[in-house]
Amino acid sequence: MTQDPLVVFTPSGKRGRVPAGTPVLDAARRLGVDLDSVCGGRGICSKCQVAPAYGTFSKHGVTAAPDALSEWNAVEARYDAKRGLKPGRRLGCQARVMGDVVIDVPPESQVHRQVVRKSATLRAIEMDPATRLHLIEVAEPDMHEPAGDLQRVAAALAAQWDIPEITCDVSLLAKLQPALRKGGWQATVAVHSPHSGATPRLLEIWPGLHEGGLYGLAVDLGSTTVAAHLTDLDTGEVKASSGIMNPQIRFGEDLMSRVSYAMMNPGGAAEMTATVREAIDTLATAIAGEAGIDPALIVETVFVCNPVMHHLLLGVDPVELGQAPFALATSDSLELEARDLGLGAINPRARAYVLPCIAGHVGADAAAVALSEEPWRAEELTLIVDVGTNAEILLGDTSRVLACSSPTGPAFEGAQIAAGQRAAPGAIEAVRIDPETKEPRVRVIGCDLWSDEPGFAEAVGPGGVTGICGSGIIEAVAELRMAGLMDESGLIGSAAQTGSPRCVSDGRTQAYVLHDASAEGGPRIMVTQGDIRAIQLAKSALYAGARLLMDQRGVDRVDRVVLAGAFGAHISPRHAMVLGMIPDVPLDKVTSAGNAAGTGARIALLNRAARAEIERRVREIVKVETAIEPRFQEHFVAANAIPHAVDPFPELAAVAPLPRVAFNTGGGGAEGGRRRRRRA
Amino acid sequence: MTQDPLVVFTPSGKRGRVPAGTPVLDAARRLGVDLDSVCGGRGICSKCQVAPAYGTFSKHGVTAAPDALSEWNAVEARYDAKRGLKPGRRLGCQARVMGDVVIDVPPESQVHRQVVRKSATLRAIEMDPATRLHLIEVAEPDMHEPAGDLQRVAAALAAQWDIPEITCDVSLLAKLQPALRKGGWQATVAVHSPHSGATPRLLEIWPGLHEGGLYGLAVDLGSTTVAAHLTDLDTGEVKASSGIMNPQIRFGEDLMSRVSYAMMNPGGAAEMTATVREAIDTLATAIAGEAGIDPALIVETVFVCNPVMHHLLLGVDPVELGQAPFALATSDSLELEARDLGLGAINPRARAYVLPCIAGHVGADAAAVALSEEPWRAEELTLIVDVGTNAEILLGDTSRVLACSSPTGPAFEGAQIAAGQRAAPGAIEAVRIDPETKEPRVRVIGCDLWSDEPGFAEAVGPGGVTGICGSGIIEAVAELRMAGLMDESGLIGSAAQTGSPRCVSDGRTQAYVLHDASAEGGPRIMVTQGDIRAIQLAKSALYAGARLLMDQRGVDRVDRVVLAGAFGAHISPRHAMVLGMIPDVPLDKVTSAGNAAGTGARIALLNRAARAEIERRVREIVKVETAIEPRFQEHFVAANAIPHAVDPFPELAAVAPLPRVAFNTGGGGAEGGRRRRRRA
Repeated sequence: MTQDPLVVFTPSGKRGRVPAGTPVLDAARRLGVDLDSVCGGRGICSKCQVAPAYGTFSKHGVTAAPDALSEWNAVEARYDAKRGLKPGRRLGCQARVMGDVVIDVPPESQVHRQVVRKSATLRAIEMDPATRLHLIEVAEPDMHEPAGDLQRVAAALAAQWDIPEITCDVSLLAKLQPALRKGGWQATVAVHSPHSGATPRLLEIWPGLHEGGLYGLAVDLGSTTVAAHLTDLDTGEVKASSGIMNPQIRFGEDLMSRVSYAMMNPGGAAEMTATVREAIDTLATAIAGEAGIDPALIVETVFVCNPVMHHLLLGVDPVELGQAPFALATSDSLELEARDLGLGAINPRARAYVLPCIAGHVGADAAAVALSEEPWRAEELTLIVDVGTNAEILLGDTSRVLACSSPTGPAFEGAQIAAGQRAAPGAIEAVRIDPETKEPRVRVIGCDLWSDEPGFAEAVGPGGVTGICGSGIIEAVAELRMAGLMDESGLIGSAAQTGSPRCVSDGRTQAYVLHDASAEGGPRIMVTQGDIRAIQLAKSALYAGARLLMDQRGVDRVDRVVLAGAFGAHISPRHAMVLGMIPDVPLDKVTSAGNAAGTGARIALLNRAARAEIERRVREIVKVETAIEPRFQEHFVAANAIPHAVDPFPELAAVAPLPRVAFNTGGGGAEGGRRRRRRA
Repeated sequence: MTQDPLVVFTPSGKRGRVPAGTPVLDAARRLGVDLDSVCGGRGICSKCQVAPAYGTFSKHGVTAAPDALSEWNAVEARYDAKRGLKPGRRLGCQARVMGDVVIDVPPESQVHRQVVRKSATLRAIEMDPATRLHLIEVAEPDMHEPAGDLQRVAAALAAQWDIPEITCDVSLLAKLQPALRKGGWQATVAVHSPHSGATPRLLEIWPGLHEGGLYGLAVDLGSTTVAAHLTDLDTGEVKASSGIMNPQIRFGEDLMSRVSYAMMNPGGAAEMTATVREAIDTLATAIAGEAGIDPALIVETVFVCNPVMHHLLLGVDPVELGQAPFALATSDSLELEARDLGLGAINPRARAYVLPCIAGHVGADAAAVALSEEPWRAEELTLIVDVGTNAEILLGDTSRVLACSSPTGPAFEGAQIAAGQRAAPGAIEAVRIDPETKEPRVRVIGCDLWSDEPGFAEAVGPGGVTGICGSGIIEAVAELRMAGLMDESGLIGSAAQTGSPRCVSDGRTQAYVLHDASAEGGPRIMVTQGDIRAIQLAKSALYAGARLLMDQRGVDRVDRVVLAGAFGAHISPRHAMVLGMIPDVPLDKVTSAGNAAGTGARIALLNRAARAEIERRVREIVKVETAIEPRFQEHFVAANAIPHAVDPFPELAAVAPLPRVAFNTGGGGAEGGRRRRRRA
């Protein structure tokens, strides 16, 4: 008796013997190999393409004869003629195993393929979205067995795809009958199974094989901007990313001013809800248009946002979030209909998943950052800071994760800064000041040249230099400190004290002229004493929040700092540390996670297990409430100095020695000093 | 050691010993006695009122001392002062068992109280609605345990009401926080649990104890009329019943003309859907107004309707129901949001339950009739006929139930009749013709006198006699037959043949003058040969359907006939049998079930087990499709004669001997005969 043929699948290495004549797709299923199929083996979807290898493979102990797989059959030939199979590829559902063989499953044929994230960590997302396509053959109606079309669709899903039970939205009922008849009783259905306990739900139906794809929208709903990533639910590929300003800004720049608006104006919360929902709907339409995709193919959405935006998105008045005990209306994740969030432009049955909030001040955005950065897997004690109008701060490692938020205010985003502006072409984003000459050079967004390089003016263009953005002001303040133009208390020295004519009087205080185009009728861009104070308040709040978590953890140093947020990506670690925004660590231990909240949203969109994981993790995270913790105020005051009044910064000292200067000679400087003492 | 006190509950007879000091409510729960409570034993809802009995009860072997229960406490005294307790009543949650006692639980204190139906069968509905009220005490928010308000509501329901898990519509989230704070962390919630497998759902929340009640709407959506019953979900009481014409009539009188309208007019189905949904919404508002109830307190709806109305209600084009194989889009019951059916006037989170359809031609209305009449419990073989524009027919007993529908057309409702009109004041509803004098007397709706009684004209009023309604035309045709004015073939004799001057020429045929007010300028109401033909077609279809079920069952007689439908309630059994509408049975075996479809809807509204039962039963019912069954045509032709060409009617013969007459002498009569032959 000859043995059954041996099949070895790569890259999994799974192997086993199957009876001669077994289709490769069946062999894969039997051996637990991840091989995709939408059409269920009918030779039309081509998702099960494999690349057989022939020859001797000593690694696997297999010699594959040229006839190890059955010859091309009519189905493969037809598919190849119509759509073209790549050389060397076979359809797994058609090719049959006839002898020992090695079969490679290319990434695009894997259901749970890995999607590499654009991130420093290079972690991959395993594809396991909640919504999947299935081709079904549905029994024709029979007068003697008068089951409805929906019941026969359900029977087909049970028999052909092992989905034993489904629910169906009433709005889809109207589409069932025409689709089934048009497709000759063959149809593709989109089935949504958010988690193992939920009854799968029919989201959409198409006649025959649907080849138009299926998409999801990951939305990072921030106080200032709304960013969305249109993602292919099959490949995980981001088809388009787009952002708009949050139109709620007209009701208040920061979160607390929006809470106030809701408190002061009857119907104010509802007004803000309608405004932001409309904006998201518009963004969804725009991004689908940008990617050239029918918005009706967007069947899933994921939202991450801070608690106030979370409540306003859900239509809940955020008033309780404006005062202790900062009670959330709901803290758990939500799985609901996207139309209930006012999304009318996408598929009418699209689903929405909202990540859980961690606490009344630490929202689903922080949860998304956690999901992206996974501090619970860190061997080193890691501080993750998501810098925005509010800073979300996580501290932890494999043993424990703590979280808080801190009200930094919008200074880091260029607001409350005399020459501040949003990050846009013309904004100064980088600053260097020569410690000898005290002369600055700057770089602006949209231009790679420094201002002291030839051709800068031409490269910047007619708009010229227009202002300072968030990362620009951080660098400017840090450079002032490093150049000895500003002292530890944050006081800018006078021209006499510093020897620089760029230090000019500005009322009772001094300012530093960063860029002067007034001769050409352009702006004179200065860093004012007020700017310094605003940055000091913001960075003190950030540092104090981090210190509070460190206290709670019982440490006075961390091993690693991760800067998250779109803004975090642009902060220079060295300047951030000179400013004392973050605790002292070796500079190479400060990394940027990019838009971690957006990445977290995308992970939740593409992987159901990730949803379950973050739902579990947020319960385990230790919540620290900055607003009621007396030590927060202490830490805040001590952090006012640049870099810090008390904490040593030895790592920083090694890479950026800071001159010892003091400009407090009464007048404006004394005012600053008095203010600090009052706070203590 | 003395024994624990013995408690005997009546009417259940449940008994047992409980430790002295046990509250009566706890004792009831421990002994499995059905005693209601909304407030969970806080002495405020008074749902747990009991009537203790003192003295010697030999039947129970108990002697209850006057101090068998604890004395009134402050809570009871406060309740009595505020709302008044009936004499002899105690609050079960406050009164404690101190000695042996007999305690009566009055019907209004039982959760599963029986509601007597207004029906000949006197069957009761056991109260077990899907939505119930629960008073909860919710933990206040705690900054150190930042669970959302919803999560603390869920925890309260789990701890205080043993409801381990809930879901919550996003629209209710906005109401949670204000309600909890207004009620001082005490709130009443409405929880919807449609069946044991479903996760309970929060439908509504009120601060403190909600005493405004909770209501459901049972809707019988017919082709011609829409009837609704507003029902108290606590007591089962019908607070108001109301009906309106189905506004879809303007698209077609009967179902097939509406299907045609959908086929011929793009968007026609959607137009009919919008029309009927709007009408139901208007009806809901009107009925709530009539009962003086806030429409927002209507949290559940149940719909019964034929398959075409079912599809139009759901927004599904009924085109497939117009042709074989009559495929339903969905046949199973539906549990959905009422807003998805366009109900905007009631609670925004109200639920809708649509009964299952039996087959493509036998709808949820027939299922409701079955639920009401329960043919599966009948010891006698029972034929249930729901007469409307379409007749739904059920035949069965404990062994098996069969169902079909038959297209009777609207003749039974007075349409297609020369002097036909809807049942309204002035319509002839009863007819008697003297077999000797051949003179008629009639009774009209809105007047109890016969037309030959003194004062008839005054009693009818100035409107006079206006036409003939459905039951009137049935009686008229049957009386013509009994009086020998019409022969077995349905031919009206001439004046010469019958000797009655009321037989007049009407074109080529004869007509019988039933009422002549032409001298006073009123109408001359005649039964025409065309009317007879219309009734013959309708009754033949009905009888043929019944016979088909009897064939399938292998019988040629039934034991009992139940006439259902609003119209069924007004048909005289004797006349129906003379006409041969229904098979021959003893007259006392013909009963009316009233509006059985509406009753079935109300049962499904009030009892969850009934929903499960009908869902199971419809699968077991044997469906017979009249449209494709060749014998239907045979039966139809044979049933054209009055009462029948072939089947003997011995029971009828005993109570109503029919004269042997034949008027077919050529002319109009022959035309009728030819038409019948052509159909054969």
